Amino acid sequence: MLFHVRMQVTIPDSMPTERADLLKSNEKALALTLQQSGKWRHLWRVVGQYANVSVFDVDSNDELHQLLSTLPLYPFMQIEVTPLAQHPSALAAN
Amino acid sequence: MLFHVRMQVTIPDSMPTERADLLKSNEKALALTLQQSGKWRHLWRVVGQYANVSVFDVDSNDELHQLLSTLPLYPFMQIEVTPLAQHPSALAAN
Amino acid sequence: MLFHVRMQVTIPDSMPTERADLLKSNEKALALTLQQSGKWRHLWRVVGQYANVSVFDVDSNDELHQLLSTLPLYPFMQIEVTPLAQHPSALAAN
Amino acid sequence: MLFHVRMQVTIPDSMPTERADLLKSNEKALALTLQQSGKWRHLWRVVGQYANVSVFDVDSNDELHQLLSTLPLYPFMQIEVTPLAQHPSALAAN
Amino acid sequence: MLFHVRMQVTIPDSMPTERADLLKSNEKALALTLQQSGKWRHLWRVVGQYANVSVFDVDSNDELHQLLSTLPLYPFMQIEVTPLAQHPSALAAN
Amino acid sequence: MLFHVRMQVTIPDSMPTERADLLKSNEKALALTLQQSGKWRHLWRVVGQYANVSVFDVDSNDELHQLLSTLPLYPFMQIEVTPLAQHPSALAAN
Amino acid sequence: MLFHVRMQVTIPDSMPTERADLLKSNEKALALTLQQSGKWRHLWRVVGQYANVSVFDVDSNDELHQLLSTLPLYPFMQIEVTPLAQHPSALAAN
Amino acid sequence: MLFHVRMQVTIPDSMPTERADLLKSNEKALALTLQQSGKWRHLWRVVGQYANVSVFDVDSNDELHQLLSTLPLYPFMQIEVTPLAQHPSALAAN
Amino acid sequence: MLFHVRMQVTIPDSMPTERADLLKSNEKALALTLQQSGKWRHLWRVVGQYANVSVFDVDSNDELHQLLSTLPLYPFMQIEVTPLAQHPSALAAN
Amino acid sequence: MLFHVRMQVTIPDSMPTERADLLKSNEKALALTLQQSGKWRHLWRVVGQYANVSVFDVDSNDELHQLLSTLPLYPFMQIEVTPLAQHPSALAAN
Repeated sequence: MLFHVRMQVTIPDSMPTERADLLKSNEKALALTLQQSGKWRHLWRVVGQYANVSVFDVDSNDELHQLLSTLPLYPFMQIEVTPLAQHPSALAAN
Repeated sequence: MLFHVRMQVTIPDSMPTERADLLKSNEKALALTLQQSGKWRHLWRVVGQYANVSVFDVDSNDELHQLLSTLPLYPFMQIEVTPLAQHPSALAAN
Repeated sequence: MLFHVRMQVTIPDSMPTERADLLKSNEKALALTLQQSGKWRHLWRVVGQYANVSVFDVDSNDELHQLLSTLPLYPFMQIEVTPLAQHPSALAAN
Repeated sequence: MLFHVRMQVTIPDSMPTERADLLKSNEKALALTLQQSGKWRHLWRVVGQYANVSVFDVDSNDELHQLLSTLPLYPFMQIEVTPLAQHPSALAAN
Repeated sequence: MLFHVRMQVTIPDSMPTERADLLKSNEKALALTLQQSGKWRHLWRVVGQYANVSVFDVDSNDELHQLLSTLPLYPFMQIEVTPLAQHPSALAAN
Repeated sequence: MLFHVRMQVTIPDSMPTERADLLKSNEKALALTLQQSGKWRHLWRVVGQYANVSVFDVDSNDELHQLLSTLPLYPFMQIEVTPLAQHPSALAAN
Repeated sequence: MLFHVRMQVTIPDSMPTERADLLKSNEKALALTLQQSGKWRHLWRVVGQYANVSVFDVDSNDELHQLLSTLPLYPFMQIEVTPLAQHPSALAAN
Repeated sequence: MLFHVRMQVTIPDSMPTERADLLKSNEKALALTLQQSGKWRHLWRVVGQYANVSVFDVDSNDELHQLLSTLPLYPFMQIEVTPLAQHPSALAAN
Repeated sequence: MLFHVRMQVTIPDSMPTERADLLKSNEKALALTLQQSGKWRHLWRVVGQYANVSVFDVDSNDELHQLLSTLPLYPFMQIEVTPLAQHPSALAAN
Repeated sequence: MLFHVRMQVTIPDSMPTERADLLKSNEKALALTLQQSGKWRHLWRVVGQYANVSVFDVDSNDELHQLLSTLPLYPFMQIEVTPLAQHPSALAAN
């Protein structure tokens, strides 16, 4: 089941660099794992912003919330989730 | 080059059904052709709305505008275009 | 799986009363059926507006879109869908 | 009498963890008590956000404000309250 | 129990004057009746707009919705309802 | 002359409690004085928010600004002022 | 007493030209009269829009509403009214 | 050439009073000078807000930006600039 | 003197094609003339929308308003005007 | 390929002046380099704001993101990117 997720990241300027770097590297590691598992199907950078547009393929709302809320950068994110359905004109099945 | 495109369709209630149906079937035919060509890479339905989220793969802004503005339903669409770049944590190349 | 759905209905003043009444009665009939089936779990009226807040219990995004988009009043609705997950402090399971 | 309440929580990153944890555990305890009393009838997590959608069943506006404003996390919440009425197509009484 | 209600009226220019005048006079008559009954406690005109700010004193959400939704101009109104509680610094009881 | 005033209060979490309490008690004292004088005619709490809706009865814009801007909590308020006029259907004179 | 008034005019394309022209000429005549009387103190055109920014000098909210609501183009206007006070750094008295 | 300028001032609560007072007095001095020069033609206080509405009379966009950006409070202002033109119904020339 | 102008065009679906085409061709002719004169310095199409971003080089606000308000499509445009000044890091003079 | 980019800069008041000045001078140096290379084609100051409107000429979305995200002030910017296409009435080729 597909969900469109837009993540806007805002890291306070006052955060020590080490902490920020650690968060980012942990975030990257987890993102790679989730992509390898197929859960995080698409991940694109929004040009000009510290934001991404993603598509997740999960079995339930709860699974999606669990994945998102355990991302290291989660506390510094504004997240919008849009459930997606099969489009009648789509060539590919979701 | 990838672009995230959100299309919200609003067809006036006053439009004769035949005209609306013709527009929709032409739209579907063109959407299928563009997907087959690889230009229209992803097409998903936004749950609960006459709207879709799509990803286009084109060579230029002009090409994207030409594709979008010649969609039969274009005059009845509100379209938001967001250019996408490669995300540093993305497993797959754009 | 639960989804929070807000439906704002706007019927054009120019619509003939008979057509409007037919749409409304068909809408009511389908709403009752879907509630009896357990799909449409909660349905409340927003005070002062031709709008409702509902909670649907469905198995997938696609099922939810199919239910919503086949509501007779669907073409006259602005719908916002918010996926819900289990709240860690909720007494009742979703 | 039912009220739809949306609570968005924002805890400053600068808050010491102990204080944040204490607030959250007190919040959870009170939430459970209010649910057991029937006042807090529904509590769902908004997927991807530190937010919930709830339905309260109270006897008056004043009672609702008293319940909300004494929640431990109240100073860190943006709250929207929407009064609900019986929907003419609702199977269940409010 | 007090509710703050803001009503913005938009009557289509295409509506025949007779129908508009009838709606308005019925609206005025009902407004006077509801004020005499004490339900419609305050009614003020927003300067420069076909809008009013009102305060209703009702026993329940359902009663408020019933009063508002049976106003003749209801189909041509955008209504925002804000439940009010006793302010700790208010001299007068609500 | 009546003005509708909505005051949203946001006190920074970092403010020492003593200072906050002093501000609040001074605010309450002044609010009571202004209500006794008839200037601050209505004061209601917005349910679920650190906000109030008020109606002031003053002789001029300048007087209203002087009253509002000398409220102890003024620097921590977002204020919206809406001038009110006599509604043609209002039973009571403003 | 000064009020800042922004008027955005939207005349439906379907309105017969004669009626629109008559409304506009009546509007202009009344605007000139009100300026001569000193009530309408400033009237400027917003560049690129069928809108104006004005400053009215009136004795009360009611007078302002009466002036605005009797403008011929009033039914086709979106109006925002902002009460103005004497600025402590202003050289000229209001 | 006239420009409508709305300035919303937000001074952080954490700023030492001396610094804030110095900024404000320098702001006032410069405002008086600019008004005497005719550049800053109108300056009004928005009732209930630390904001003003002004009209500047300058020879170019660059001159306006230079005046605004050298105001002592500029770093703490949200500024909206609206170019004004002669209104066809205005009695006075701009 | 430079102004950034964003024009969003919305032509009602009910407008006869001949009238729409005539408006568009007149618009194009005038646009070319104004570009040749140097007044309309830049004209770009916003991808995916019936909108453009332009830069005008004019001698005054009034001249800009005169140019914009006499565009054939003006009654069907939403226009935002932003005055531009010389950027301190700009290589080229405005 | 052209992109319209609006950059709004907000530097926290708490940032030491030296750091801010260094960021600004590095920003200016890079901006000049990018303009000399033709990548940063236009750079204008928005009157009254610490913001600019720019037009970039790049070969891809990725190149644009790389240029923007390596600007020294990038972490303190809100950026909106709008892809531009050739306007059918434009005299000059993009």
